[in-house]
Amino acid sequence: MIPKKEIDKVLAGYENDSITIGTIGSHSALQILKGAKDEGFDTLAICTKDRAEFYKDWNFIDNVLVIGSYKDILKKNVQEKLIKDNVILIPHGSFVEYVTPKSIEEKLYTPLFGNRSVLHWESDRRKGREWFNLAGIKIPKEFSHPSEIDRIVIVKFPGAKGGRGYFLARNEGEFNKKIKGIKLTMKEKNNFTIQEYIIGTRFYLQFFYSPIIKKVELLGIDIRYESNIDGLVRIPSYLLAGYEIEPGYVVTGNIPVVVRESLLPRIMEIGNNIVGASKRLFPPGIIGPFCMETVCTEDMNFVSFEISARIVAGTNLYLQGSPYSQLLYDEPMSTGRRIAREIKMAVDIGKLAEVIY
Amino acid sequence: MIPKKEIDKVLAGYENDSITIGTIGSHSALQILKGAKDEGFDTLAICTKDRAEFYKDWNFIDNVLVIGSYKDILKKNVQEKLIKDNVILIPHGSFVEYVTPKSIEEKLYTPLFGNRSVLHWESDRRKGREWFNLAGIKIPKEFSHPSEIDRIVIVKFPGAKGGRGYFLARNEGEFNKKIKGIKLTMKEKNNFTIQEYIIGTRFYLQFFYSPIIKKVELLGIDIRYESNIDGLVRIPSYLLAGYEIEPGYVVTGNIPVVVRESLLPRIMEIGNNIVGASKRLFPPGIIGPFCMETVCTEDMNFVSFEISARIVAGTNLYLQGSPYSQLLYDEPMSTGRRIAREIKMAVDIGKLAEVIY
Amino acid sequence: MIPKKEIDKVLAGYENDSITIGTIGSHSALQILKGAKDEGFDTLAICTKDRAEFYKDWNFIDNVLVIGSYKDILKKNVQEKLIKDNVILIPHGSFVEYVTPKSIEEKLYTPLFGNRSVLHWESDRRKGREWFNLAGIKIPKEFSHPSEIDRIVIVKFPGAKGGRGYFLARNEGEFNKKIKGIKLTMKEKNNFTIQEYIIGTRFYLQFFYSPIIKKVELLGIDIRYESNIDGLVRIPSYLLAGYEIEPGYVVTGNIPVVVRESLLPRIMEIGNNIVGASKRLFPPGIIGPFCMETVCTEDMNFVSFEISARIVAGTNLYLQGSPYSQLLYDEPMSTGRRIAREIKMAVDIGKLAEVIY
Repeated sequence: MIPKKEIDKVLAGYENDSITIGTIGSHSALQILKGAKDEGFDTLAICTKDRAEFYKDWNFIDNVLVIGSYKDILKKNVQEKLIKDNVILIPHGSFVEYVTPKSIEEKLYTPLFGNRSVLHWESDRRKGREWFNLAGIKIPKEFSHPSEIDRIVIVKFPGAKGGRGYFLARNEGEFNKKIKGIKLTMKEKNNFTIQEYIIGTRFYLQFFYSPIIKKVELLGIDIRYESNIDGLVRIPSYLLAGYEIEPGYVVTGNIPVVVRESLLPRIMEIGNNIVGASKRLFPPGIIGPFCMETVCTEDMNFVSFEISARIVAGTNLYLQGSPYSQLLYDEPMSTGRRIAREIKMAVDIGKLAEVIY
Repeated sequence: MIPKKEIDKVLAGYENDSITIGTIGSHSALQILKGAKDEGFDTLAICTKDRAEFYKDWNFIDNVLVIGSYKDILKKNVQEKLIKDNVILIPHGSFVEYVTPKSIEEKLYTPLFGNRSVLHWESDRRKGREWFNLAGIKIPKEFSHPSEIDRIVIVKFPGAKGGRGYFLARNEGEFNKKIKGIKLTMKEKNNFTIQEYIIGTRFYLQFFYSPIIKKVELLGIDIRYESNIDGLVRIPSYLLAGYEIEPGYVVTGNIPVVVRESLLPRIMEIGNNIVGASKRLFPPGIIGPFCMETVCTEDMNFVSFEISARIVAGTNLYLQGSPYSQLLYDEPMSTGRRIAREIKMAVDIGKLAEVIY
Repeated sequence: MIPKKEIDKVLAGYENDSITIGTIGSHSALQILKGAKDEGFDTLAICTKDRAEFYKDWNFIDNVLVIGSYKDILKKNVQEKLIKDNVILIPHGSFVEYVTPKSIEEKLYTPLFGNRSVLHWESDRRKGREWFNLAGIKIPKEFSHPSEIDRIVIVKFPGAKGGRGYFLARNEGEFNKKIKGIKLTMKEKNNFTIQEYIIGTRFYLQFFYSPIIKKVELLGIDIRYESNIDGLVRIPSYLLAGYEIEPGYVVTGNIPVVVRESLLPRIMEIGNNIVGASKRLFPPGIIGPFCMETVCTEDMNFVSFEISARIVAGTNLYLQGSPYSQLLYDEPMSTGRRIAREIKMAVDIGKLAEVIY
């Protein structure tokens, strides 16, 4: 793990009045860079050759840096260029997936918005549960061995792969049969998590924690739109008789939603508790956007089955602000723009290092 | 029932240039108070202690009044304070549920936006049907006794409980078995309604009737997002074999939708007819927001299964305006803001009493 | 087919500083006329008597022309009036359905936004496939005879009827049984298409091609909300046992959605390729809005099952702009407004004839 003070040293060399906001071209890059431009920053998309033309096409993207593969962002000459250009990188789901948490922790010297210590807490399931427990967050029952399965469960695999390979099972036999069929490496397969499948309405809560104004904000809520499951369940069951088509849970998009207002105090409590616990576990704790993936059961309890400790793709719905951001800001405030705003505020009061690691 | 002229007398004592818009902290209070603030009013959230911190946190809420229980809003000292502060209360679903229609009718002397006579017409199912019939609104077949059930029906229980306890049944046997299992009091259970379950697309039509400009406006449309049903149907049926999980219909959120334009003339007719009939049944009729809960069948007919004669939670989607409000207003116009606008217009032309009861 | 130069001759007689944007009152007329008004044009809704009152009610509609039936738009005196008033007509789905492609091609001398040659390519399925193949667009397998059905298929009927009569079948027997039951004329029934039913998430991609700025824009994405299917699948399957209710696919509304950003480059490629192929097949090719109806399969491939070569009703969601239009325009930019903007830009640079046919 690169120590915080080494990143601070790099940051100390930055010219604060010519910062560039950069990210990898994928996931929520358009939102992030549009928001950065709206807040007055120069912007940079870093991508492979096949996507360069796509990212060059937008007015709000000042520069596109083409690299051979996403891991090339770690190369000495690339990082030197980024640092020379005063680039602050914004991590997102694909960024972390492409570059890998380990490489970010150990080899990425370029300043990153947020606290990179969170990667460790997020990628290790045991640590994740410790965090949730300390925050008093209700989680689904987990089964450590397939033989323990006694209800409908969902089997998941780690990493930000957008749901690929996930499957449902009702018992050990189904588990064994299905895990054989999925297209993952042996190593990935062995890293399975067996979670009770919680039945209810799904709410993906898009939070933002600002260490500058010391406040947790709810910036939006979405529902994931997953293939093939959201198509499969639209075929009447009698027509599916004879076709045991396996459901898939690959995230392909997002649908907007609002939650019953009487549930909002509990939701804000979840957000605040997650931040509070993170400050104790890995000070200064989580910084910027994070998303709680929850299901609201019929008795109005939220069960949280995952945290994404960075901007999530569901925020792409709210380029112009969400029904929640609009309660907080009279301007259009996407999560991408909120990140840039936080950096701007931090620069203005001379506390940039507090939102960077 | 408190006579209109008694409320008018209270209202006559109000200082019209320092009106406060108040409501109970729940349901659509954030939207209502944000809209009131945008229209230049002082704002007040009334809530129990556990929610006080949550409501104090918003910039657009000037004051939070903490009461022991929601019914305490009826207490003499509380009402005296509200009246002294020139508070106009905005009723919403939870407001009516918490305080009860009967108490609002008989004990709430504080001026209320809208016509409180509607409570009577809405809570009595026979009266409700009379209203719908006079308006020429198509309603689902109702069965007065479980023995008459000859198709898929939905069994509902009165009150603004957000769908709690609702269940589906196909015959008397299923009815009897299922009604035993639900968690409601005996009195609530006996108050069941058995409705034909209409299959089609659900549209919750958010109307607003302005007695000031004498016009029905469509301000938005939503789809309710209900637990557990919207999670249950996302499990492929072969995986549910052996688990007869009972569907639940508790409203937990709302999803935005627009309707085919060729259906809009019929929709406006429904809104206009409901207002017209209300003027004949309980003059001056319905005032302000109301929602028709409809299903659009495959042959493009709207069947209306309920009316909510006040602001509904689905309007929370449209803080910044909906695709329909945007046809009417070049500013962001939520239903909450529209209420405040109506009060402002009424004050400006000296007709506040016409929108209050 | 009326030759382009005859329309150009009509257009040459227009006073370019007093153009009226007109369309038939249905489908997306409100959006089109609101957008035209926002861009400074006079506006005209053409409709039958029963809808006149509805269309007269909107501030942004300057004139309503009442005609006996939609085909009356072809009458000499009606067209003369439209031409005298410098009306440019905007075609939409119901416009084409009501007036028919053949009549538009052969009898409508009033200038139309877009390239009317596209009607031919869109209504003839063989030509449509030629277009898709040239553009390298993946399409579902089609079966020319019911006896070939070897998987779940959807059977469709041509024309912009919004999904009426569509049904699913698994084999020839089901096909024969179901086609008997549907309410269509014999001629319509014989015009069936049997398509493989692709399972995945549905994305209706709303594009706009501008010959003025020579660019394909993605202005929004939606999901269709269809009756009765979207209600039917919300009934748990065990409750449907014994009721083989036939699913229906009549489009009744639309729900907003965003797509995973990593899929956007492929989506833009689809849009660009469709435009490129159209330029070769029927120069100058497609002009203005078009919609690709796609399903995203679990392995992240887009299968396109239809094109609508004009504004689609799903754009009605985005009166105030979509998450995609907001990346392109800092003003609220609906597809309706974008059309008017294109006409305005064309007028300004003296190239109106390039966007009209």
